[in-house]
This record gives sequence, structure tokens and C-alpha cells, in this order.
Amino acid sequence: MWRKNFIDISPYTAGEQPKSDDIIKLNANESPYPPSPSVERLLKERDFSLRLYPSMDSAPLRKAAAERLGNANGVSLSYENIFIGNGSDDVLAAAFRAFFNSDKPILFPDVTYSFYPVWCALLKIPCRTPEVDESFNIIASDYYPENGGVVIANPNAPTSIGRDKEFIVDILEHNRDCVVIVDEAYVDFGCYSAVELTKKYENLLVTQTFSKSRAMAGMRIGMAIGSPELISVLGAVKDSYNSYPLDRVQIEAGVAAIEDEEYFRNIVSKVIATRERAAKELRALGFEMPDSSTNFLFVKHKSLDAKEIFEFLRQKGIFVRYWDKPKIGDRLRITIGTDEQTDKLIAALKELIL
Amino acid sequence: MWRKNFIDISPYTAGEQPKSDDIIKLNANESPYPPSPSVERLLKERDFSLRLYPSMDSAPLRKAAAERLGNANGVSLSYENIFIGNGSDDVLAAAFRAFFNSDKPILFPDVTYSFYPVWCALLKIPCRTPEVDESFNIIASDYYPENGGVVIANPNAPTSIGRDKEFIVDILEHNRDCVVIVDEAYVDFGCYSAVELTKKYENLLVTQTFSKSRAMAGMRIGMAIGSPELISVLGAVKDSYNSYPLDRVQIEAGVAAIEDEEYFRNIVSKVIATRERAAKELRALGFEMPDSSTNFLFVKHKSLDAKEIFEFLRQKGIFVRYWDKPKIGDRLRITIGTDEQTDKLIAALKELIL
Repeated sequence: MWRKNFIDISPYTAGEQPKSDDIIKLNANESPYPPSPSVERLLKERDFSLRLYPSMDSAPLRKAAAERLGNANGVSLSYENIFIGNGSDDVLAAAFRAFFNSDKPILFPDVTYSFYPVWCALLKIPCRTPEVDESFNIIASDYYPENGGVVIANPNAPTSIGRDKEFIVDILEHNRDCVVIVDEAYVDFGCYSAVELTKKYENLLVTQTFSKSRAMAGMRIGMAIGSPELISVLGAVKDSYNSYPLDRVQIEAGVAAIEDEEYFRNIVSKVIATRERAAKELRALGFEMPDSSTNFLFVKHKSLDAKEIFEFLRQKGIFVRYWDKPKIGDRLRITIGTDEQTDKLIAALKELIL
Repeated sequence: MWRKNFIDISPYTAGEQPKSDDIIKLNANESPYPPSPSVERLLKERDFSLRLYPSMDSAPLRKAAAERLGNANGVSLSYENIFIGNGSDDVLAAAFRAFFNSDKPILFPDVTYSFYPVWCALLKIPCRTPEVDESFNIIASDYYPENGGVVIANPNAPTSIGRDKEFIVDILEHNRDCVVIVDEAYVDFGCYSAVELTKKYENLLVTQTFSKSRAMAGMRIGMAIGSPELISVLGAVKDSYNSYPLDRVQIEAGVAAIEDEEYFRNIVSKVIATRERAAKELRALGFEMPDSSTNFLFVKHKSLDAKEIFEFLRQKGIFVRYWDKPKIGDRLRITIGTDEQTDKLIAALKELIL
């Protein structure tokens, strides 16, 4: 009887987090490298005054991010253009709630980040999911019809495909009457970033994360970049739900990571170089895949079953991601690890295939 | 035009967070003492592997909390009885969403934590707010009528009044058909805890926080204690919104804090001793207040205006909390600081009053 008012929901399922230290973990798109040494130094040296509440709006991190993203994208950004949340899931959930209050469906591709439909279900947002084409490309014209909002992951996951400025502008030009979210979780691995477009399109919200290119999945920092108007509505949503989503350590660690641009560029370059080598070697073993703009590869073997490869690698202590789902059930998502981990992956696959 | 789908909300307003280090900050119910030294040691010494995602469900912290709360309350609790969130605001927001899906109004007092009506507005939960009596006591029979759920802060804030087991059981016995939340943010400062009752009443959810008695407001850790069924619904809500609300540092810091029971008892005792002295001295200066079961006092002066005292203290660099609101506009909420801070507070008030 007292159970009658329980919520009715279907949660998101994240990648498996195996407990052993022995394994090669290429299943969650984590960085193979640690965060900037300045983050570790900060933890060791700083007195965080943990007895006190943190900054309510993560102000120091908003300022640092505005400066860095402004420089990187050749535009002028300030504090008012940045929203900070507890990982980009927290940021995206707040954005769905803030901006998608229409009776018309929001639009996102049928193959994309699988948290989008979960938020729609939770927040009772109607949605429609146009199909990607047979090469997993999103078709811009599918996003022309009237709608309640648009969400495009660029690069898209799990397909790894990044699209250019022309594609994003096309979507924006055809969607002036709703908010368009471009989810750039993987953008730093070599894809066009729409951050510059937030200056022209006041209805564009770009989201990014510290979990991938900044190697801080364990620290939970995400951000949104957009017009001051969008950012202030996000702030109001935060203040209606959880006043202090980031703690004092997260805020300062985020600033330290952002300030070490050189280290950031260095680990991103290493991941990209390893990715290009891994793609080449996997293709030589009979895998096909789209060119990746991310820190993972979305592969299909010409003859072997994806689940079979997944099970084989798992038993060798190499974890990759497999989904028993339509359209992607013949594919694996393999995170780019270190060069050494990549050598082990290739050696294991050779054992299976050759 | 694109703004038409924005959410329409009225956010919660937290206490002012003045930037200066010079002030005496008695306005946010923070601890005057730092967290357990083992938390600081942990930060300095541990490699947190920040490149990796944290435990999705904060498992180590759930286990540590279950053991400690079981011991402290004389019941057997396990992992399945504990939910962990990003501060108790995050926990309470998840609980409102999880359990309050009725057309009937939920009930909470008119004078209580002012985030409750904000969550109701955000989540479109109907609510009714029975009045506390002229001594700020909650009247149990107001919570007998049919409803969609009940929320009682015990001790209540900002009144500081703690109620006994009989009162809580009375509410529970009259509410078998809905979820009852007892918000115990301040319980460790000398109030009856309903944790033991979660074994008998499967529809009871108790929430607690690390921000007050554990001196970790800057670390954002909250928890809920309840039947495995309630806890698993909370977990599903979390997994439909933000998979990883706690980072790797928070989880381990939480465990370290819980394991230092001696330090915890020590700082709580100090706060209680200072509170009793402060209450006595303030009463001697013409203030009246309920007996406090919290780390703050809810005071009214027999002749001076609350706002006037607030402004006077502020100009002396002593920040307390004042609300320009009906029923509590003649009162101040003063957090218990160190003995030295209390001396300065009393000295400043003497200057104003004598």
C-alpha cells in the first residue's frame, strides 16, 4: 500500500567496473594516463577547509574554464558563459530539465549516448529518435522538423564519428525556436568544437567533461558553455535541486587541471597517436570501423562475432564494451589505452583471429 | 521564441558565504572544528586513481556507514540499508522524486527546512504545511490525515527543537500508507534518532549528513537509511539521473571520517558544551530560545529587533542568519562556533545591549 507512490523508471546502465587491478580496462573510455601532476600536488599540499561549504556556483572553476575555453576557441568567454556540474551527466540532466518543457518531442539519433532516453523517461520529456544511416552518420535534415529541442553528441558515441562546423551550423540554422545541445564529451580528441558558435546562437548549449581528455573520471566534473541566459537558467535548476553539487576539492582540482594546458595537450596527443596505430593494426586483422574522433574505436570484425570476441578478451583480462542491442550488437567499443595495453590487445586478438 | 520551453522555478536561497577570512561565520551551521585528521592524512597520502570512474554506488562508504550506524543505534544494518548522495540535499531530492508521486499532498511543517517546498515546486509534488504551535512545536495529529507522504526534520530547523521517540512513533503509526522521511541533519547534537525504527517501519526513510557533526560541509556527503526496498528505489532514481554522484575522494574521505568515531564524539561534545554555555549567557542578556538539540540557537531578544542585531553583528564581522519572513522574522539563527568565537559574540552583544 505505501509502495503505491513509488516512481516508475528504467535506469541507465553504465559500463562494468571490474574490481581487479590485474585487468586491462578498455570498457569505460577512461584515460590511460593520470590527471595533471598539479592535481595530485594540490591534494597533498592544500588545506581545503573542508568544514566550510564550497562555493555555491563553483565560481573559481567557472572563471578558469571561461578563460581557457575562450582562448582555445578564439572567442571571449566569461564566468557568465559557464555552468559547472557533478560530471556531464549532472549538467545534461539539468539542461534537459531546464530547456525541454515542450509538448513537442525533442530529437536525438537512435544510436547515441544511451542516457538521453533515460532522462526523457525520468523527466517525462517526449522524444523522437531519427535513425543514423548505414554508416552511422547523423542526417542533418532529420532535425529540420518542428521539435521541442535537439541533442547531438559530437563526436557521437558509441560511433566515434565527429562532424564538422558545416553540419552543426546546418542543425542550428534549422532550429532557431528551441534549445540545441551539443554534447562534446569527446571533442578534445580531434573534432570541431561548437563553443565558438555559442556567441552567435544564443540557443546553443555545449557540454564538456573532465572525465575523458582531462583524465578525471574519478573526480566528477562537467560543464556547459552557452549564453548568459541559458547558463542562468541552469543555475536556477541547480539551486532548485542541490545547492552545492561540487565539493571544495573538486573545484580546486578542476582549476589545477585547467591551468596545466601543456600536460592536457600532451596526453591528448598520446591518445590520438595510439588510436591511429590501433586502428591501423585492427584493420589489418579484419576489423572495420569509422574514423574515430574520440578516445575509442567502434569496431566490427568481417567474420567473427562481436560477443565471441568480447568473451575471449574478457577471459584474457581485457575488458571492452559490448551491447546486446539492435544495430550495434555486431560491434565493440574499445577504449584507447596505453601503447603497452594496445600491444597486449592486438596480441590477444591475433591469437584469436590468425 | 526559443525561450518558451524554459522551466519555471523559484530556487532555494542558501546562507550568505562571505569571502573574507577575517569574519566569524556563524550563519551556515558549519562546524567550528576541522574534520577528523584521518581525512586530511588520506588526502595527502592516498593515490586516488582519479583517471578511473568511482564506485557507482559508493559501496565502501555504504558498508562503513551501515556498520557504524548499526552499532550506534543498536540494530543490525548492512550495505542494502544505506543510500549515499552528494550531500543530504541530493539524497532528499532523490527521495522526494522516488516516493512522492501521489495526487494527495505531502505534509511538512510551515516552519522547517526551506528546501522542501522548492523540491515540491520543481518536481510538481502537491504539499500542505501544517502550522507549528506558538512554541514552534510540530503537532503530531496534524499528520494523521490521509496524505501523499510526510517529511519531518528532527531536530527541526531553524527552530533547533528535537523530539523524542514517542513523537516519531506517533507519526509513523498514523502513516502506514505512505513514505515518511525523517531528516536528521542535526541529530548527532543530542536528539533521538529514528534509525532503529527503520527495522520496524519499512516505509521510514531517515536522512543524515556529513556536513554538520562530521565537519565536512565542504565535501558533500549525505546518506539515507531505510529498508532495502526504499534504498533500491533511491538507487534507481540515482541511476536515472547521475550515475556517479560521489567522486573517488569523497567516498574514501567519508570512510575515513566514519572510522574515527572518537574524534567525532569529541567535536560533537565540544559543540554541545559550548552551546549550553552560549544559551545561558544569551538568556542572561535578554534572549529567549527553545532548548536546542542542534549546533545552533534560535533566538529572539525581549526588546531589540532581530534585523537590528543582525546588522550590528555583521558590521562587527560576525555573521548570523536572519530571514525577512513571517513567523521567524523576529528571530536569529546563531551557529555554535568555538569557545573563543562565542566569547566574541557575547562581548559584541553586550556592547549593543548593556
